[in-house]
Amino acid sequence: MINIRLAIAYDGSAYGGWQRQFNRPTIQAAIEDALARMLGETVVLHGAGRTDAGVHAREMVANFQAPVRLPLAAYRRGLNSMLPADIRILAASEVEPSFHARFSARGKTYHYCFSTAAVMPPWRRLYSAHFPGPFVPAAVRAALPQLLGEHDFSAFEAAGSRDRTRESGRGGVRRLRHLSLERQQGEENEFRFEVTGDGFLRHMVRNLVGTLLEIGRGRREVASLVELLASGDRSRAGPTAPACGLTLVRVDY
Amino acid sequence: MINIRLAIAYDGSAYGGWQRQFNRPTIQAAIEDALARMLGETVVLHGAGRTDAGVHAREMVANFQAPVRLPLAAYRRGLNSMLPADIRILAASEVEPSFHARFSARGKTYHYCFSTAAVMPPWRRLYSAHFPGPFVPAAVRAALPQLLGEHDFSAFEAAGSRDRTRESGRGGVRRLRHLSLERQQGEENEFRFEVTGDGFLRHMVRNLVGTLLEIGRGRREVASLVELLASGDRSRAGPTAPACGLTLVRVDY
Repeated sequence: MINIRLAIAYDGSAYGGWQRQFNRPTIQAAIEDALARMLGETVVLHGAGRTDAGVHAREMVANFQAPVRLPLAAYRRGLNSMLPADIRILAASEVEPSFHARFSARGKTYHYCFSTAAVMPPWRRLYSAHFPGPFVPAAVRAALPQLLGEHDFSAFEAAGSRDRTRESGRGGVRRLRHLSLERQQGEENEFRFEVTGDGFLRHMVRNLVGTLLEIGRGRREVASLVELLASGDRSRAGPTAPACGLTLVRVDY
Repeated sequence: MINIRLAIAYDGSAYGGWQRQFNRPTIQAAIEDALARMLGETVVLHGAGRTDAGVHAREMVANFQAPVRLPLAAYRRGLNSMLPADIRILAASEVEPSFHARFSARGKTYHYCFSTAAVMPPWRRLYSAHFPGPFVPAAVRAALPQLLGEHDFSAFEAAGSRDRTRESGRGGVRRLRHLSLERQQGEENEFRFEVTGDGFLRHMVRNLVGTLLEIGRGRREVASLVELLASGDRSRAGPTAPACGLTLVRVDY
C-alpha cells in the first residue's frame, strides 16, 4: 500500500461538514467517492480534523492508502475533473507509511472573518459572519494575551461533546500559540481573527470568537476572561459564532 | 410622485442578469417584486445599466417613482427583509424629479478579476475567472495606454448588438478615463483590472479583458491593439472573458 497525502481546499457552504454522513453531502464522502471511481475500490480518507457544516478550508490535509502507484499529478487532475468546483485538490504527495493526517498533526491555524457593515456585502455572505454595529478592535486586542499559551478551555467547548473531543486524555487543556485580529485586506468594515494552536476542542474557535466579539461590542469586560477560563463553565461564555466565518487555513506537521 | 434612488449590491451568480425576463430570475424583477409588496402597487425600476447573467455589482444605482412618501430607512430595511441575501439595498435617497439612473449617468467603473493559479480557489470561483498558466502583467500594462481616451470600440462590441447599444447616436465611440491592472489584495495569483469610462458597448469590458489576457499570456502582440481598434472587426479581437469575473463597482453622476 502507498500512503498518499492530499492538500484540499473547499467552500463548505453546501456541505454537512467534513465527515461522511448518511443523509447529507460531505467533503469526505465526495472525495472518497471520487477516489473509489478512480481506483476501482473503496478507500478511507483520514482528515486532519472534522470541520463543521458550513466551515471552509484553504488547505485541509488528508491521507489514504492507495492500492496501486499512480503518477501523483493524476490524483490532482483526475479528482478535480470528477469533483464539483467547490472542492479542489491542491496537491498530492507520497508520504511515509507512518504519516496519519490526524494523529501526526502538531497544530492548526484558522481564520474567522466577520463584517461590521450595516448591510452584509453579498459576495462575502458565505465566508464572513455579520455583526453590524459599533466594534472596538482595541478592546479585543487587549483581551487576546489572556488566551495565549496553555489553558483549560472547557468553558469554550461545545456543550455535551466532552466524550468526543477528549480522546487524547488531555482533558480540556490546549495551547494557543498565536492569536491576532486584523482588518481584512480589500474589504471595508471586515475583520479577521487568526488563531494557531496545538489542537482545538469542538466549537472552540467559534466560541472564543463569540466571546471576544462581546468584548468588542462593549457587552463584556476584558478582565472577565480570566475568571471565565477558570470557571470552565460553558454557560458563562459567549454564543457560538456562525460557521460560515470559519476557515481552516493550515495544518502543521 | 417621489423620485427614489437606490444603491444596490448583488451577487449575480444565481440570476439571468439585471433586466427582467420571462423565464429566469433577475435582479430587477426581484427588487420590483419586493417594491410592489411594500408599496401595494407595481413600479418600474430604472437601472443605470443592464448587467449580464452572472455579473455582480458592488454598487448599482437605480431609481423609481414612489406613489407615497415613506421614511427612507424603511426602503433599506423593508426591502432587505424581503430580498434574498445575494441582493442587498445599501441606501435609499430622495432625488430631484429629473434624475434618471441610466440617462443621468456620466460614467461607470468595473472590476474584472481573474486567477492564474493552477487550481481555482473554491471561494473565488463565483467572483473571479480562471486563466491558469504563465501570465506577464508588464506586457498587459504596456498595452493599456493605447486603449485610454476616445476610440471607436466596435471591435470589442458583442456581435449582433449594434442596434441595441447604439441608441445614443455615438456609434461605437466611447471614452475610457482609467484602465489599470493590479494584484488582488489578499489573494495569491489573482489580478484585477479596473476600468472607468463614460459608457460601454455590450460585452466591451469582457472583450477588452479577453484580448488583454491574450497579450499577457504571450498569444498576441502589444502593438496589434492599434490595428485591431482601427479595424472595428470583432472577429479579430480576443474571446469574451467569463461573466463571473466582472463586477460593476460604481456609477458616477
